[in-house]
Amino acid sequence: MPKIFIKNKKEAIEYIPDRDLLQLLLENDIFVDNPCNGKGLCGKCKIRLLEGNLPAISATEERLLKKEEISSGIRLSCLVVPQEDITIEILQKERKHEILTKGYIPEFDFHPAISKEIYEIEKPTLENQKAFEDALCNALGIEELDWQLLQKNEVTYGQITGVFHGEELIGIEAGDTTDTLYGMAIDIGTTTVVAALVNMKTGEELATASIINPQKRYGLDVLTRITYGLENPKDAKEKLQHAIVNAINQMIGELCSKAKIDRNNIYEIVVAANCTMMHFLLGIDATSIGKSPYAPAFVKAKNISAMDIGIKAAAATRLYCLPSVSAYIGADIVAGAYVCQLHKKEGNHLFIDIGTNGEIVLSSDGRLLSCSCAAGPALEGMNISSGMRAAEGAIEDVKISDDGIELKVIGNLEPIGICGSGILAAVKELLRIGLVKKDGGFIKKEKLEESDYRYDMLQLDGIKREFVLKKSPGELLITQGDVRQVQLAKGAILSGFYALLKQANIQMNQLHQVMIAGQFGAHLPAESLVGIGILPQEVEDKLVYVGNSSKTGAYMALMSTEVKKEIEELAKQMGYMELGASEGYERLFTRCLLFSN
Amino acid sequence: MPKIFIKNKKEAIEYIPDRDLLQLLLENDIFVDNPCNGKGLCGKCKIRLLEGNLPAISATEERLLKKEEISSGIRLSCLVVPQEDITIEILQKERKHEILTKGYIPEFDFHPAISKEIYEIEKPTLENQKAFEDALCNALGIEELDWQLLQKNEVTYGQITGVFHGEELIGIEAGDTTDTLYGMAIDIGTTTVVAALVNMKTGEELATASIINPQKRYGLDVLTRITYGLENPKDAKEKLQHAIVNAINQMIGELCSKAKIDRNNIYEIVVAANCTMMHFLLGIDATSIGKSPYAPAFVKAKNISAMDIGIKAAAATRLYCLPSVSAYIGADIVAGAYVCQLHKKEGNHLFIDIGTNGEIVLSSDGRLLSCSCAAGPALEGMNISSGMRAAEGAIEDVKISDDGIELKVIGNLEPIGICGSGILAAVKELLRIGLVKKDGGFIKKEKLEESDYRYDMLQLDGIKREFVLKKSPGELLITQGDVRQVQLAKGAILSGFYALLKQANIQMNQLHQVMIAGQFGAHLPAESLVGIGILPQEVEDKLVYVGNSSKTGAYMALMSTEVKKEIEELAKQMGYMELGASEGYERLFTRCLLFSN
Repeated sequence: MPKIFIKNKKEAIEYIPDRDLLQLLLENDIFVDNPCNGKGLCGKCKIRLLEGNLPAISATEERLLKKEEISSGIRLSCLVVPQEDITIEILQKERKHEILTKGYIPEFDFHPAISKEIYEIEKPTLENQKAFEDALCNALGIEELDWQLLQKNEVTYGQITGVFHGEELIGIEAGDTTDTLYGMAIDIGTTTVVAALVNMKTGEELATASIINPQKRYGLDVLTRITYGLENPKDAKEKLQHAIVNAINQMIGELCSKAKIDRNNIYEIVVAANCTMMHFLLGIDATSIGKSPYAPAFVKAKNISAMDIGIKAAAATRLYCLPSVSAYIGADIVAGAYVCQLHKKEGNHLFIDIGTNGEIVLSSDGRLLSCSCAAGPALEGMNISSGMRAAEGAIEDVKISDDGIELKVIGNLEPIGICGSGILAAVKELLRIGLVKKDGGFIKKEKLEESDYRYDMLQLDGIKREFVLKKSPGELLITQGDVRQVQLAKGAILSGFYALLKQANIQMNQLHQVMIAGQFGAHLPAESLVGIGILPQEVEDKLVYVGNSSKTGAYMALMSTEVKKEIEELAKQMGYMELGASEGYERLFTRCLLFSN
Repeated sequence: MPKIFIKNKKEAIEYIPDRDLLQLLLENDIFVDNPCNGKGLCGKCKIRLLEGNLPAISATEERLLKKEEISSGIRLSCLVVPQEDITIEILQKERKHEILTKGYIPEFDFHPAISKEIYEIEKPTLENQKAFEDALCNALGIEELDWQLLQKNEVTYGQITGVFHGEELIGIEAGDTTDTLYGMAIDIGTTTVVAALVNMKTGEELATASIINPQKRYGLDVLTRITYGLENPKDAKEKLQHAIVNAINQMIGELCSKAKIDRNNIYEIVVAANCTMMHFLLGIDATSIGKSPYAPAFVKAKNISAMDIGIKAAAATRLYCLPSVSAYIGADIVAGAYVCQLHKKEGNHLFIDIGTNGEIVLSSDGRLLSCSCAAGPALEGMNISSGMRAAEGAIEDVKISDDGIELKVIGNLEPIGICGSGILAAVKELLRIGLVKKDGGFIKKEKLEESDYRYDMLQLDGIKREFVLKKSPGELLITQGDVRQVQLAKGAILSGFYALLKQANIQMNQLHQVMIAGQFGAHLPAESLVGIGILPQEVEDKLVYVGNSSKTGAYMALMSTEVKKEIEELAKQMGYMELGASEGYERLFTRCLLFSN
């Protein structure tokens, strides 16, 4: 079999020459960015050919790559099918991502579902050969034992500790183990997975960890992953499930090692996630989420054995999945709404989680109405020509003046791309200095005097205008296409915002608060949000940042059965409005595309 | 790696030279008889070395093998550790076994646990994006759906068929599938597994299959298999479970192909088995069964998802395991007692299942008392020098007169060994013609005249006397050791019989009926059973043969929820007497060893 050698890596990949290079790399756990999921659209899966031959360059590659790139050996890995031994260089590096784990939390009482109690199990004798199960049932005063408890445990007499989930016996342990009672709260995002290890006796958060969702190899957004499932009906469900379960297992290991506890003492895991991630986690068919009328397989909370989906903790560990409302209002949003106590608020309050999808929940005196806006990944730095996630080397803020362009870069490094907050700041500045018009188009270069400080910032690529954010070497541009992506995202969210208010018959001045949730929202200063009109100018002083309320909700549910019930109730009460099906939405969306309030 | 070539087999076994030849062969699914489980005791695991070298012959081999065998290259595979390429010949052949599947069955009403019903599931719309689970719950009038049903099924709307186990929804199928409703009844014996495919709509037995329990490679009796578990704590539980589950899957395939039905339409499997086999089936620790005070991990009935232990049928298939009474009164005996309706009988009735263990149940006006006798495998043709199971070529009956020895051979072939019924008949004849005394010893040859027809039948091997059943070539002997094995089995069962009567305070003449159950019992004519005193002379005309009542009980439970309840009740009611703990048992046993009533 031919081999792929990778610069700076010892091991080569042996391959059967029938698939494209991107697939071969991803299958071997070598990450190459691929926002369009290998469809030959985004031009991001670049690698450099160092030795050996690849098929001749295609028209698509010529269109998506620059001349200098082509001449330096850059190819798009999804568009080439290697046939022989080659040596390549991987151009992207996985970097440490900045992920927020802290956030706002209301006061509540601890009543976790998991508890432990000590029992004495009578030893059998020749005269009384009582089966182990019967001796246990006797001691615990129960009728029957789950057969899997018998399978998971050796026969053990004398002192034992019973582990209970509510009234139900879920574990038996030799001796007295009442001191060790841990749980985990997990937020599974499409992009990021965050987990906290919790001492369930005290409520203390012992350690937190975060990881990039490894399902990214099957697509960056939920729709691409669902499409991956449709295209690979045989094993996609398993692959997607294994990817996330493995990630959770890895985090369990990391957290237990940090906190110096045994993974067998984790008894409950509570998960908040969007509806698609929840389907993938449980290995449940998510296809129907991807097509109209967008009815998911399930939205209800699920309470299952963690082991049943391959999670490695205690034999007894329970997995509680928070409830969703609909295909695009997931448990992450329900958890967030709960954390913000939207259902108990007087007046009108808005909750927004900005990410690939923007989800908005409006509370009018506790009545909840939600909608979801397909913002696209631009606000997370994806589908942007120089875009990247909020990792080291990413431009996160931009100021433009006649002194030039001032860039703020994560890690204070040489910039290698621009992340969501950076692109927003840049577009805001381009609007401010008048290089981009309200309709989103760049102005014509000939309208500027050569002496204008903005003159050199604008350049032409053929007939396409682009803004030079950073000059060569390592040129970074903001293209007309990039501005359009931001514009689409802004239009989607702003139109959702207005549609929801209209549906609830609420005027802008009746709005008391706008809560910004989520990983990404926390990186966006109010001036950027209202500056380009993702949110209307009027709400600028009403913004509150609540952090990762999805994980916080999972933590609260872990620590209280009462919270679980209230969250389930909240999910049932929350109304959902399908924007696409609401009257006059298309017109509203078009109006909201304009860069003005 | 060196290789083992096997005569008449194409593929060679590659091996790491660190284990004995028996282990290497068994691991590669090549069956070599090994009643003592590779302990170097029984002398049965013979192979012939054709090419290459094995370590020099050991003292144990010299003792267990005849000189002619040694000179013709025969070795005991458990006693040699090969180091190089060798070619060997396997001497035993797996033959078609005679297994009984029919038997007595009382009348009962059909009320199976499984039923099907048709529903209409409302399709979602953009205005009503109800999750699939919620639409299902609505249509079925239930609160919640098992998450695994969501995992196992694709989202499907319109007409569906709900599969119910009692009230519980266990499956959903697209369209109307009410016509296909099948189940299986299985009897898992230590030696033999028998299964019947049943049309649960009519109660008709569509096909039956039987198979040798593949766990035999880990030992022929339950204790050896439990010991194997102790010696291989890492993976024995899995191996034993996989062996039986694979056998069941194989039988499902065979039965479905015979009856031309889809394995996905099998919804319930009911299993009867002895207590140890039931532990192995569920992958539950059976260690405690093997040591005093013989308390098993469980005896209660179990109702689980068949898929959870790897059985391949419908996603929804339930597995119901009948209840046991104690470590050595298993669900097979409980099922048999139920089939014989012992709990409803007036007067005194005895039920005996003769096998490696002899189990006896006494009913006094419906009160049930049981005991188990460690008969050993002699009555099944094991641990007998020329012994074999009831397969083609086995002597199954023997008549001795002054005309000579008349042998009845299964399949009318040249005899190659003697099975259980044959060894019993032979010992009975040896007693009758006076070659064996009541104490079990052969008479001295010098006591016979040379003209006596019996004179040539007796021969000496050193100081040991033996009976020549068949002369060379292919000499078959009954040794003094063989007679002792039969004597031990007889003593065990007869003493159990008496102990039980004594405990219940019942006289022999108060006994109305003795029911003989099981595979092996059905092969034993009354004259053999009472002829050597396994049972007392007085019961000869009270014997009734009930066939494989274990499988029949499984069938009845499959076809009726009521029967399941009654069997569970019966198991709770049945008393158990541990012979070893009962007073005066040792003396009784010694007395029962005598070949006289």
